Amino acid sequence: MLVRPKPGILDPQGKAVENSLRHLGFSVSEARVGKVVDLEVDASDSTEARAQVERMCEQLLANPLIESFEVEIHG
Amino acid sequence: MLVRPKPGILDPQGKAVENSLRHLGFSVSEARVGKVVDLEVDASDSTEARAQVERMCEQLLANPLIESFEVEIHG
Repeated sequence: MLVRPKPGILDPQGKAVENSLRHLGFSVSEARVGKVVDLEVDASDSTEARAQVERMCEQLLANPLIESFEVEIHG
Repeated sequence: MLVRPKPGILDPQGKAVENSLRHLGFSVSEARVGKVVDLEVDASDSTEARAQVERMCEQLLANPLIESFEVEIHG
């Protein structure tokens, strides 16, 4: 799953990355930094796996005030 | 782009997430935590964009000793 700062929310880590990339000579108009969390869960199918990971995001992995999350299921 | 700890490399943040999820009652066998960096770059096509982002990863965004990276181009 991916957790990203919501649009409009200040992202100091993204700003730092932007500035560092510009100092290195890259042409970047925006950088936003989030997290990727790869999880191995016990689930009988992908629907159940998705529901579990969404609950994990809501309860622990994402802060709903400032972050949005996206769940991808593999295998 | 996505940056993840390489297989076999200790990931204390992932371990902390694993433990916290288990305390909440979730059945998780593994969690690994990495970064997602969304970048807006100036490039004439997707091949050039990919080459630029790969250079950014090598020079700043990923530590090749302990992390692997993956570039996805959109739009």
